Formats: sequence, structure tokens, C-alpha cells
Amino acid sequence: MPRDPRFLILAEGSFNPLRSKTANACIRYSPGRVAAVLDSTQRGKTAQQVLGFGGAIPVVGSMDEGLAHRPNALLIGIAPQGGQFPAEWRPIVRRALDDGLDVWSGLHAMLGDDPEFAAHARASGAAIRDLRRPPADLEIARGRARDVAATIVLTVGTDCNIGKMTAALQLLHGLRARGHRVAFAGTGQTGILVDGKGISVDAVIGDFIAGAAERLVLEAAPDHDVILVEGQGSIIHPSYSGVTYGLMHGAMPHAQVMCTQPTRTAIRNNEWLSIPPLPEFISLHERVVLRPAPVIGVALNTYDLDEPAARAAVARTARDTGLPATDPVRFDPEPLVAAIHEFHLRRAGTAVAR
Amino acid sequence: MPRDPRFLILAEGSFNPLRSKTANACIRYSPGRVAAVLDSTQRGKTAQQVLGFGGAIPVVGSMDEGLAHRPNALLIGIAPQGGQFPAEWRPIVRRALDDGLDVWSGLHAMLGDDPEFAAHARASGAAIRDLRRPPADLEIARGRARDVAATIVLTVGTDCNIGKMTAALQLLHGLRARGHRVAFAGTGQTGILVDGKGISVDAVIGDFIAGAAERLVLEAAPDHDVILVEGQGSIIHPSYSGVTYGLMHGAMPHAQVMCTQPTRTAIRNNEWLSIPPLPEFISLHERVVLRPAPVIGVALNTYDLDEPAARAAVARTARDTGLPATDPVRFDPEPLVAAIHEFHLRRAGTAVAR
Repeated sequence: MPRDPRFLILAEGSFNPLRSKTANACIRYSPGRVAAVLDSTQRGKTAQQVLGFGGAIPVVGSMDEGLAHRPNALLIGIAPQGGQFPAEWRPIVRRALDDGLDVWSGLHAMLGDDPEFAAHARASGAAIRDLRRPPADLEIARGRARDVAATIVLTVGTDCNIGKMTAALQLLHGLRARGHRVAFAGTGQTGILVDGKGISVDAVIGDFIAGAAERLVLEAAPDHDVILVEGQGSIIHPSYSGVTYGLMHGAMPHAQVMCTQPTRTAIRNNEWLSIPPLPEFISLHERVVLRPAPVIGVALNTYDLDEPAARAAVARTARDTGLPATDPVRFDPEPLVAAIHEFHLRRAGTAVAR
Repeated sequence: MPRDPRFLILAEGSFNPLRSKTANACIRYSPGRVAAVLDSTQRGKTAQQVLGFGGAIPVVGSMDEGLAHRPNALLIGIAPQGGQFPAEWRPIVRRALDDGLDVWSGLHAMLGDDPEFAAHARASGAAIRDLRRPPADLEIARGRARDVAATIVLTVGTDCNIGKMTAALQLLHGLRARGHRVAFAGTGQTGILVDGKGISVDAVIGDFIAGAAERLVLEAAPDHDVILVEGQGSIIHPSYSGVTYGLMHGAMPHAQVMCTQPTRTAIRNNEWLSIPPLPEFISLHERVVLRPAPVIGVALNTYDLDEPAARAAVARTARDTGLPATDPVRFDPEPLVAAIHEFHLRRAGTAVAR
């Protein structure tokens, strides 16, 4: 049985609301597991000061300082584009392993396959957990998710790193409070880290992306009424759209929740690619699915707007799309909870009536 | 330098016009490389009798018989769904390696990584060539294909195994005859086998599918006026759409050629999924690209129609879509050659005029 982690989170040079996605999600959804964050450029601050949440979790400037907070695991807290392992972090990982800390990583590069790291881990008895390592026995998808009785809801988005995982996680509590048995299906390293299980669909070989999504849905189906599937990327993302589509066509959602950031008008790192107006993008999303899957709500990410501007953006989005809208982190997630609740009841009612 | 192959093609139990895709393409486009085909269920026939092309290439019933035709390589001539290696073929591959034959494979399972096969290859000095093994240094796509001056044409299709590679290969000769420097960009094991280079995009990890397509286009760009990119799967295929989209968004075509089979009304092995009417499907294809890329012609696969029915299907398709149409294998590929030629001239003219 793996031990319960108490993390020192490595986010050197990158701990901020935008870039350290894995670190931030871990701090938001399991702050009790976080001993400290390592980023010498933010040393001396608290997570609260850097992120606006996370309370007194300290930011430290070195491994020595970090080890003083008695972590039992090092978590690689950022996910660089392309997922490769920055060479300047090798000494940090070696040091952690030598001190007996487990190392948790969501990078594409499998740290457990690195001969040097593997040797250090063996010597100290520490474990290396590669969150993105896909199961060895994946199959191709065959549309089996269409036979699932549970209501499958997929969070989708206009771009990467815009709130698809966060939106799903923020809705769990409200849906459970309404009495639904709700599963979260994690599809990226961060969602897997938070939920403790899942498959990182972007690390799967192309032909098996949809099969991985199908498996996640089939595994969650028997014990749940609603399955919230964490979306990935965007159907218009020039680097990652293959993963987005494979996930969508394998999961076969009954409904979609659109995630967007009002201030983002082009795909990040690809400024040549404008994001279409939201109603047009929603209509495209409803056309490219393999069975009807209406977009039933919009989750906004307004972290970079002041409160009046954020409220105005929510109101404008609701008006432009005719859909329930909210920032489920900053404001009450209830409009989206209600949308899924009502969609599920209507679907279940229809299923019974047939 | 690897030796020029003279293949014994393994297609046991599957040698026919539909199932042995890799074998058939090899026989069609490089018959001089084929010594014999191994399929005990078709023993004694010629390729011509089984496929309708391929001349006197014999079909043999055993390894002993096959070796009598003096091959220097065994080609795994079918691509089973999921790409796994059928266990009953292990003795055949061992025998081939022991006899000094190289083994060429396009399966997902990397035969070169199989300890038993690797040992047999080492012992006899034979080589194992895994056509699907992706380059180790792939990067994510960044829309770089949009800066390419050459005209990029992608073959797309309503389903898998419907003629996307074949259509591209059938157009090469006609375009070259018109004086264009034309590249074929192979994206699957068969295309790579025929062309001698390429990347099997369906064997690439999800995040790098588009990057692989982008690299193929960038590598072909400097020396060519027209790049014909071999499409994969279908944007509505429940198993493989992720590969299809990643390839399309990474290659960033200027134009698309639609491949279809008139008698196929649903996705194969997924009969629950109807293929939409062609004009509707074409309009969807023109909507999901990341820059304008009109569908400029239709390639029909009419192998299962008699000649009058095939001609009627071509005429009906041209009328329904308003586009040039032909079966580029059975009839003259000229309508599609002309469509690409004219599109390229118009594009080049526009580029000069700007």
C-alpha cells in the first residue's frame, strides 16, 4: 500500500496562478497533503499570497529548507509544454530520492524509466510514481460508452489550461449534495493526482486515446448516476486537438459544459489562431460529437478580471449563449450544478418513459 | 545500408482485396519487390486471381514453399485492428529470422523489442524493421505548416481503409507529368513501406500526433511544389478520430480530397454510426480545419460495384457535390489531378499577386 503523501511541490521559477497547474490544483483540492512549495523566486511568501488560496503553506527557496517541513514525497508541480524533464531539476530529484522521498511526476518523460533515478530510488527504498503512465492493456474504442445508463458530462474548452478540470471538480460537491452518485473521471496528470486514479489520455498512443476514455467511462458507470469527465485541450488547438477529439469520441458524453476565459481571444502560444465567438464555438462542438450532446452550461475563468468585470462577463455570456453561466471557482457553482441535475433528471425520465 | 527487400508477405487467412491492406499496397506499388504471399487458405492462386492485380506473384501455403521463392525479407502483410501480434505467427517469424530473412512489420507491437525475436535476429544477423516506430525526438505542433509555400493537399475519408493512401499514390504520376515536384507524405505503416519513409502518426503519443504531421510537411516543403499527405481514419471514427484530427491540424492542408466508398453507409465495425450524406460530410470537413481548406475533389472506391454501377456512382457523386470525382484506381485519375493542378496554380498565382 503506498503511503499517504505529504508533498514538497517543485515549482521552481513557475509558481503562480497561471503556470504551475499541477501544484495549484493539489493545493486547492488537497491542501492537507502539501508541506511546502519550492520556488526560490517566490521564497518567503505563502501559497495564499501567491495564488489567492492555500492558506499558510510556505514557499521555500531550497531543498534544505523544504526538507525542514518534513515532506515524504516530492511532487513535480508544473507541466512544461511537451512534458520533457528540465535538466536543471535532476539534482533536486536525486536529492529527494536519496532522502527517501517518493517522487510523483505527471511529465511525459517517465522518471521511473530513467536509469539514474531508478538506481537512486532502489538505493533508498523510495518510489517513483509516473502519473501519466498509461495502462499496458488499452484497447481501441468501440462506442461502448453509448450503452452506459449514467449521464456522461464532459467539460470542454476554448483552449488548454482554461479550467476544464477545475470546473468538473467544483461541481462534484453540489451534485452530491443533491443526492447524485457522481464520479470524476480524471484524464490528465493533475486530475489523476487529485482523484487518485484515472488515465492521462494525452500520454496514450494515438489509436488508443478514445479507448482510454471509453474505459474510464465504463469503469465509473456501474456505481454512479453522473460521470463528470475531465476534458483536455480544445477541438481547435493546433497541438493537442487529436487528444481532445479522441477523448470526446471515446467518452461519448450526453452533455457538455463549455469552459472559457473571457479575456482570452486567441489560442495561447498560437496567437495566429483566434478563438471564435462563443455561440459559434458551442454550435461547432454540438456538431462534431458522435451522438447528440448539447452544451448545457458555461464555466468562466475570470481570475484576471476584477469582480464587477467578472460579474459582467458572466451575465454577458449567459445572455449571448442562452445558457446558465458562472465562474464556479469565484462564484457559486450552483447554476451549472442545477443545469446538470435537470439534464440528468430529464434524461432519466425519458429513459424510464421509453 | 539496408538491403533492397524481396518479400515473402505473411497474410495467413487474410489475403483478399479488403483485409490485407499492407500486402495489397506493396503488391500494387512495388510488385517487383514481392517474391510470394503466404496464405494457406488461398494456396496455388496468383495475386492477380485474388486481388485483380499483381500478375503472377504466387500464393504459397507454408514457409517451406515460400522460402523456395528466395525472399530475403518477411513482410507482415496485414494490420489487425489494435495492431497486436497474433500469437500463432510467432513460429513463422522465428523461422524467417533463423533463415536470415529480415522482418518488416507495421504492427503497433514493436517486434524489435520482443526479446525472443531480438535474440533470433542477433543470432542470424537478420534485421527487424518496425515501420510504425516513431522518431524519438518529436515535438508538439505549433502551426508551422502554415508558412509552407508548397500546396499541401490532404486525403481525407468517410471511414478507415477506404482509399486515402491509394488515392494519394494514384495522383503522383499525373501531377509529376504536369511538371510539379510532388512529395508523398506517408503517415501509416503501408504508406511508409511503399515510399520508404514517413511517420506512422497513429503510433505516436497523443500530444505529438499533430507535431509528427507538421514535421512531415516541413521536411517535404523545401524541394516540392505540392505535398500529398496521406490521411488516416475519419473525423467521425469512434476509435481513431483523434489521429485523424491531430494529423489534419498538424499538416494544415490548403485543400482536401475526400475519399469514400459508395456502398458503405456506416462506419465499419461500428454499424450504429451512419456516415452522413457526402455534401454534409464535406461541409463538416471544411468547418473543422484551422485555416480554409476546401474539399476540391472526391476519390471513390468502387471495387465492389460492377462497371456500370461504378460509373453511375462517380457521376452521381460529381452531381451531388459539384466536385470532380473519379475512382482513381479503376478509372482515369485525371479529374483529381486536374483539380489539384488548377488549385495549385490559382494559389501560386494569388501568392505572387500579393
